[in-house]
Amino acid sequence: MSSTDLAQLSASGIARRIAAGETSAVAVTEACLARIEAREGAVRAWAFIDPDLALAQAHACDNETPRGLLHGVPLGVKDIVDTHDMPTEMGSPIYAGRRPSADAACIAQVRAAGAVILGKTVTTEFAGSFPGPTANPHDLTRSPGGSSSGSAAAVADGMVPAAFGTQTGSSILRPSAYCGVIGYKPTFGTYNIAGVKAASQSLDTLGLHVRDLDDVPLLTSVLVNRPFEPLAAPPTGPRIGVCRTPLWDLAQAETQRAVEDAAARLAQAGAAVRDVTLPEHFARLEEVRILINCYERSRHMLNEWRDHRDALSDRFRTVMQAGLDAPYDDYVAAMRLTEACRQQSDGLFDDLDVLLAPCVDGEAPVGLEDGGNPRFAGFWTAIRLPAVSLPTHTGPSGMPVGIQLVGRYRDDDRLLQAAKWVLETLDA
Amino acid sequence: MSSTDLAQLSASGIARRIAAGETSAVAVTEACLARIEAREGAVRAWAFIDPDLALAQAHACDNETPRGLLHGVPLGVKDIVDTHDMPTEMGSPIYAGRRPSADAACIAQVRAAGAVILGKTVTTEFAGSFPGPTANPHDLTRSPGGSSSGSAAAVADGMVPAAFGTQTGSSILRPSAYCGVIGYKPTFGTYNIAGVKAASQSLDTLGLHVRDLDDVPLLTSVLVNRPFEPLAAPPTGPRIGVCRTPLWDLAQAETQRAVEDAAARLAQAGAAVRDVTLPEHFARLEEVRILINCYERSRHMLNEWRDHRDALSDRFRTVMQAGLDAPYDDYVAAMRLTEACRQQSDGLFDDLDVLLAPCVDGEAPVGLEDGGNPRFAGFWTAIRLPAVSLPTHTGPSGMPVGIQLVGRYRDDDRLLQAAKWVLETLDA
Repeated sequence: MSSTDLAQLSASGIARRIAAGETSAVAVTEACLARIEAREGAVRAWAFIDPDLALAQAHACDNETPRGLLHGVPLGVKDIVDTHDMPTEMGSPIYAGRRPSADAACIAQVRAAGAVILGKTVTTEFAGSFPGPTANPHDLTRSPGGSSSGSAAAVADGMVPAAFGTQTGSSILRPSAYCGVIGYKPTFGTYNIAGVKAASQSLDTLGLHVRDLDDVPLLTSVLVNRPFEPLAAPPTGPRIGVCRTPLWDLAQAETQRAVEDAAARLAQAGAAVRDVTLPEHFARLEEVRILINCYERSRHMLNEWRDHRDALSDRFRTVMQAGLDAPYDDYVAAMRLTEACRQQSDGLFDDLDVLLAPCVDGEAPVGLEDGGNPRFAGFWTAIRLPAVSLPTHTGPSGMPVGIQLVGRYRDDDRLLQAAKWVLETLDA
Repeated sequence: MSSTDLAQLSASGIARRIAAGETSAVAVTEACLARIEAREGAVRAWAFIDPDLALAQAHACDNETPRGLLHGVPLGVKDIVDTHDMPTEMGSPIYAGRRPSADAACIAQVRAAGAVILGKTVTTEFAGSFPGPTANPHDLTRSPGGSSSGSAAAVADGMVPAAFGTQTGSSILRPSAYCGVIGYKPTFGTYNIAGVKAASQSLDTLGLHVRDLDDVPLLTSVLVNRPFEPLAAPPTGPRIGVCRTPLWDLAQAETQRAVEDAAARLAQAGAAVRDVTLPEHFARLEEVRILINCYERSRHMLNEWRDHRDALSDRFRTVMQAGLDAPYDDYVAAMRLTEACRQQSDGLFDDLDVLLAPCVDGEAPVGLEDGGNPRFAGFWTAIRLPAVSLPTHTGPSGMPVGIQLVGRYRDDDRLLQAAKWVLETLDA
């Protein structure tokens, strides 16, 4: 295969070909590095990349008995996730050159399974809203979305087959939707988050950006310890609830069209599609998610607030101050509401496999300053449900516009199976 | 006041006297250091203590306008909680001499309120079961319990008025009960846990060891940001459910007697006391808590497992291996059970203020190797309820035997008010 072809393979495809002796970890890593060499000047997806270090890992793979399911597979890592052999700077000058002493749990897991840590991907400042330098690979004048900007852009641009992202609001799904890749936010707590800089402990969720949905169960089997089973679409169309949410009127026309078009075509293809209306108090979820985020974030960041306040962006300081000012009773009330809604959400899935919902406001915003609004995915993050963004549609400018599928709490398998059927049906 | 008297004051008492100009931060810190000087050779509660560093903080307090509610109050800190100016070694040779770059959130919070970080208290190895050198101050041949061994012993021995502990099973309440102090484990997530070495992310709870229950609302107001209101016992006796739990037969006679005696005397004093039986599936809570603990802990500790396995104790390696071997589906089933039980637990409190339950197996075990069994408090930690241990009774050897009060999820205030009434009523 050509270097270009190798760089376009999925993680699963790479693992399979290396296992079969059809290619090598070094060849795949070189292909990724060549793509980065060609495109990084424009896309700026990487916070740290050291070709020698990546190739040394790949050489080690090629010289040893395969260690696990990810043998020789290059992965990108959002730069709020600790790596013992690469800086972890969190998108902030405060941590320029910081070298953690240990790997985050997820990094130790994928290394043990043979992965090559290709490099660290750009994050917005502490996974907040202040952007990094990354551009959208589909249109360099547009935002890749945040906060997992570099991970989504790198995967979209063929620089790496898969990358870790984190979502506290919509930080995996939104950049994935803007960049035209698949984003996966598991049920809260599914992947271990030790060694990942905390933003908001009740919301932070480690997840993935991939180009091929089949990579999700592969990586999941390593990250949670269960045997790998390839993803299979259900034989018949899933039961899909179209949930426009109380945020519907805030979505741009292209997002509304994407949801309506998907619903119509999936119904035509045999899915049992019906509309779902949420109980009224769900309307407050986005408001309380913001409060929880600010309240918790301001605690996690007290050191930086005390010792490096001038090095924080204005945007970040505003969030910090809002969190420090938030009364505890409001926070508790917010937590109670999210817990009640999560429990009630279970009933929605009694006769549904997934919800189909808007994912992003619309196409990626023009300019790199505005990373888009987190509300459409943040709504579901607040209640810890698993969700995927699927790059099924495009907007008026030809930019990707994703749809969102939301699963039952702790029923990620059913969500992913339905997502597979949806992707196959929409031929996306 | 004499040095001995100063060292016996509560955090609230110290804060009040310093604010009134009746004593100084330096005098209080010197009193604590004098007690440590006299007793540390026998008790061995401290992993790190630097008198000069403690006194420098106290001098700074005395030379500045009071910063907050804890101005000049010395606090002890379990050695899995990061401090930027003291080592954080986590009870393991792996981290000998480790200096974190930042304070844990809770440390930054109490410093901002004027606290003096007196030193780091001994933890068992990574807050697991392998003991440190600490002895029980009431009988140096006995265990102080774990994992917050040093915090409980230091508070019990008058070395410091209050100390941070953490509880993943029973690591605050058990050592508190063995050492004859008050332990407080808030509702899961109440105090921010960033900068605390993770043991099991779904269970880890930051809390307190104190000699005076009034210190809990004082520290809480700093740690959650709410105005300080002194604790007041309810005017009439609370509604108390005696919950012997399915573990009752495993409790030693002194623990059973403590619970029965407390129930009888509290009823006589005007509490509405009745027996409570839990739904049958609660019986599995302790078993699933162990599984969750092992599963999650093995992920958090992958770095140490990979790079420093020989430096882990046999006990720790056994836990790690159990966690690595645990099937994911079992973990998910365990999490589902704890979530269901937590939701159901709410109903128990519809007509009850608190549950009265056994706290520890019995008196502290003889010898320092056996830190006692975590099951009696771990049972409630599994479902994230707030709990306190109260040093109300003694056993056949004259050692402290605590009782446990358990509150409704997120209703810590009601728990603490009831606890105040119970302490006053039992004159403990």
